Amino acid sequence: MNANANPTPDNTAKTFSPGLEGVTACRTRLSEVLGKEGKLILAGHNAVNLAENNTIEEVWFLLHEGRLPNPAELAAFKAKVEKLGVLPADEVNLIKKLRGPEPLSAFRTALSAISNKRGYKPWLNRPVEEVTEEVIALCALAPAIVEVLHTGRRPRVKTLNSGYAERYLWGVSGKKPSPEDLRAVETYLILTMDHGLNASTFASRVTASTGADVGAALTSGVATLSGPLHGGAPGPVLDMLDAIGTCENADAWVRAQLAAKIPLMGFGHRIYRTDDPRAMTLKRVAERQNGPRIELAKVTEQAALKALEEKQIQRAAAENKPVRTLRVNVEFWTAVALEHVGIPRNLFSSTFCVSRIIGWGEHIVEQIKDNKIYRPLSQYTGEMPAE
Amino acid sequence: MNANANPTPDNTAKTFSPGLEGVTACRTRLSEVLGKEGKLILAGHNAVNLAENNTIEEVWFLLHEGRLPNPAELAAFKAKVEKLGVLPADEVNLIKKLRGPEPLSAFRTALSAISNKRGYKPWLNRPVEEVTEEVIALCALAPAIVEVLHTGRRPRVKTLNSGYAERYLWGVSGKKPSPEDLRAVETYLILTMDHGLNASTFASRVTASTGADVGAALTSGVATLSGPLHGGAPGPVLDMLDAIGTCENADAWVRAQLAAKIPLMGFGHRIYRTDDPRAMTLKRVAERQNGPRIELAKVTEQAALKALEEKQIQRAAAENKPVRTLRVNVEFWTAVALEHVGIPRNLFSSTFCVSRIIGWGEHIVEQIKDNKIYRPLSQYTGEMPAE
Repeated sequence: MNANANPTPDNTAKTFSPGLEGVTACRTRLSEVLGKEGKLILAGHNAVNLAENNTIEEVWFLLHEGRLPNPAELAAFKAKVEKLGVLPADEVNLIKKLRGPEPLSAFRTALSAISNKRGYKPWLNRPVEEVTEEVIALCALAPAIVEVLHTGRRPRVKTLNSGYAERYLWGVSGKKPSPEDLRAVETYLILTMDHGLNASTFASRVTASTGADVGAALTSGVATLSGPLHGGAPGPVLDMLDAIGTCENADAWVRAQLAAKIPLMGFGHRIYRTDDPRAMTLKRVAERQNGPRIELAKVTEQAALKALEEKQIQRAAAENKPVRTLRVNVEFWTAVALEHVGIPRNLFSSTFCVSRIIGWGEHIVEQIKDNKIYRPLSQYTGEMPAE
Repeated sequence: MNANANPTPDNTAKTFSPGLEGVTACRTRLSEVLGKEGKLILAGHNAVNLAENNTIEEVWFLLHEGRLPNPAELAAFKAKVEKLGVLPADEVNLIKKLRGPEPLSAFRTALSAISNKRGYKPWLNRPVEEVTEEVIALCALAPAIVEVLHTGRRPRVKTLNSGYAERYLWGVSGKKPSPEDLRAVETYLILTMDHGLNASTFASRVTASTGADVGAALTSGVATLSGPLHGGAPGPVLDMLDAIGTCENADAWVRAQLAAKIPLMGFGHRIYRTDDPRAMTLKRVAERQNGPRIELAKVTEQAALKALEEKQIQRAAAENKPVRTLRVNVEFWTAVALEHVGIPRNLFSSTFCVSRIIGWGEHIVEQIKDNKIYRPLSQYTGEMPAE
């Protein structure tokens, strides 16, 4: 609690919405999800256009500055991120000791450890510019951290002037990526960089709102992302495709799952009421890749959509409600696209994290520029003491 | 995002309250802050009574089970917490490598590292009992983690059957505590164990709500607590008393601060509109201790309250508003009481953390028993693309 805090109304619940559904918790200029229209906006630009045509560094600069860079600005920003992305030897050695069976648990610990080792202090009463540099420095390290955790070795030396996406894919796949594979990963990383006030972004802002150091706020983001209800499905999508095995088996398999009330991996989204634009873009990526999984994935997608629609029609009739169509979500086609470029499925969540961390960082910067501590109310359901 | 998620209304802001002020975000049976009456309830009991008469283990059991333990239950729970509170040698060695200049940044990293090393997995689809045991195991380690981070050595061997509070104070002060010092610390730790939906407790619940492992959720709590706007003032209270130096200087000093618009440390609270019951209890503790600081602290408290009230009366008259009286908060008397028992001021935040982590743990358990992911909305303030 802060000294001489402003007065607020007493402990009176104005609204209660479980999960804060429908409650607006902040303003942001960074992104907007238009669920009905199936559009994602990143700082005034259509995310699909950015994902198909731009680089991580361009979109990062866009989020940071509110406009795309000119060539000189881009070169300078890319060089800065590349330089900040190099782990000093002592930090490599520290991260090696923090490997573990759960990739995001290890990433969370490593990120926290680097911020701790560097002695980053609470942002409160410090210049925004200085704090912002710490945010960029930590985010820039994400590819190298994942590489060390994955390989147990210091990061491979990469060609000078490699971008963020290239260094990531190179690090986890073990070889310099082809232009096609690089484009596929860059497209994915841009599409998932920011997405309104999702749970992990929200957690980062809550942590930042107390004045905590930026390492603390980013650590909260990783911690929150690591839950399977938040972006955990791409790996299981591949497990599902493995279990289905052949195109002929798809229809019976998905119907058996639904009959057993087991959710299908990669379908449905809390916000999109039409096609998820990210899913459609990654489906195009997967179709261009035309890998060994593509036919099975397409047949499974169609079988699942058909079975889900039939189930919805039945339910709608039984409950006298309008039919709500479930769509394929970003995780389904992410799984196919990322597998093709050589990213192991146990690193899919880390790959998401390497993208979303940039969004968290920019939300943290936005939060500290116009801060108010998040301090909602709880409704007490216990007993009151007799006296 | 979860597979086959429930439908929700589209991206329409129902309410917007910066910092979620006045918004109820969850139900809880764990605690209730009665700001107008100046009362804190812990699971149906007056927190002041518990703090003056009970032990940490009794109140922890109360939060966990909803009732106080009988003697046999208490002995069993205390023995369990004591056993779980012993760090294995390899974890001690790991924590030694994670020391850093910011105590809560180091604690956050160490807690995350232990959870990672133990391979704790997301709680989703796992038995609540198993997950609960992980929560208790991590919380039980808090005193030993702080000791290793503080001393750089393995924890001192303590008398068998030492409680949580005793092991903590022994660890950071370096000697077996006197009964009086132990009671003072136990009182403080109980008073601050839980306090409604403060920012760190809220962050723990948000992280848990995605299905993340309990180490992730507790790490978010520590990360969020580390901000100076959330419990950061007890250390600065002592710096303030140092700066004032003598009783004669108190009045002039506080008036000079207020004239320069510098907030006084340890006054004002966001919720309490009357005396903070925790502050009053800790003031009684400090008075019983009757240490060398007590006179200066009492004179400073009175000088500050008088100067703040005069300022409020002036402001209320100028703005034609009712007078709002600022009170001393829990941090002011915490500082005096904890200094007296030999806890260095740079560990005041860690001491708070060793208390509040028990509250976070119980909130996490409560959250996962009736979970809904926290996914509020943001209001987009940027531009829309032309097309």
